Amino acid sequence: MKLIFATSNQNKIDEVKRITNLEIEGTSLEIEEIQSLDPVKVAVEKAKAYFNELKTPLLVEDTSLSFNGLGGLPGPYINDFAKALGNNGLIELLQNRDNRRAVAQVTFALILDENTIHTFEGKVEGVITNEEKGKNGFGWDPIFIPTGSDKTFAEMQDSEKDRYSMRAKALALLQEFLLANPL
Amino acid sequence: MKLIFATSNQNKIDEVKRITNLEIEGTSLEIEEIQSLDPVKVAVEKAKAYFNELKTPLLVEDTSLSFNGLGGLPGPYINDFAKALGNNGLIELLQNRDNRRAVAQVTFALILDENTIHTFEGKVEGVITNEEKGKNGFGWDPIFIPTGSDKTFAEMQDSEKDRYSMRAKALALLQEFLLANPL
Repeated sequence: MKLIFATSNQNKIDEVKRITNLEIEGTSLEIEEIQSLDPVKVAVEKAKAYFNELKTPLLVEDTSLSFNGLGGLPGPYINDFAKALGNNGLIELLQNRDNRRAVAQVTFALILDENTIHTFEGKVEGVITNEEKGKNGFGWDPIFIPTGSDKTFAEMQDSEKDRYSMRAKALALLQEFLLANPL
Repeated sequence: MKLIFATSNQNKIDEVKRITNLEIEGTSLEIEEIQSLDPVKVAVEKAKAYFNELKTPLLVEDTSLSFNGLGGLPGPYINDFAKALGNNGLIELLQNRDNRRAVAQVTFALILDENTIHTFEGKVEGVITNEEKGKNGFGWDPIFIPTGSDKTFAEMQDSEKDRYSMRAKALALLQEFLLANPL
């Protein structure tokens, strides 16, 4: 059974296909996310909203990037921050701040029916660089160095990124669940 | 006829009552706002969502505060920015930046039936101060000086604030509309 992965971001679809053996397909339906600094709440509400339209089991994802020095911002608003500021603008937000720590989180919400939603969270701590580094990956990969490495995600090959990445961690939990509870 | 003003912010209800002769009442129903940097879109979607539940003509409001130097952020996310950072944190976002200009916008959306939504926008330009000033008002009133004044909103008496305020401008448009098109 192909699972619908409700995202318009082809990069995310590609990563899920690379990391898992899940059979997924995208959807052209676009539903707005809610305003909240809680990634799980954003993902759960998104899953409900898509299910309400599509009436089939489906998967949604929220990626958030929280700066410790900014009270958790951008958090789930990272997409709009990135659009408004670009990676260099994100770096400037932390200009002259000692605390460059950040937490990247990917939350998958799998909705099976109206009342059954499972969430899978992957988190990775790291720091925001002073300048963009590397050409791989997408989004803010060039400015995030995960703890334990000295490279940004954009300086890593896929296999190395997947060892650190919050998306891979969340997907591991999702896969484990689906193995025990096939659709 | 009393109009439902769908907000949980008593300060906003008080301002509408002070500025207009509209008969309004609040609602305990809380619906999440959508993620968007477009205040009109946020207001329109909120109006639709409330109407979908309450099935009666109603009014919603979105307040946004956009920093010119931050690509329009915080915009409609000003509430979450304020919660995460406080007024001093908002000031710090502009630390060492020459461009302290900002636009405050209030958008009312009046929904009469599923297909009839009217929006009323009030904007005021100004600057963000280097420190909090004044004790009146609410929210970010202590850090916003509207163009044409040398005081923050929080240093003004109500009557003076209402001469500048984006909420008063939007309400004037709403009142004009309701005078020509009684409910």
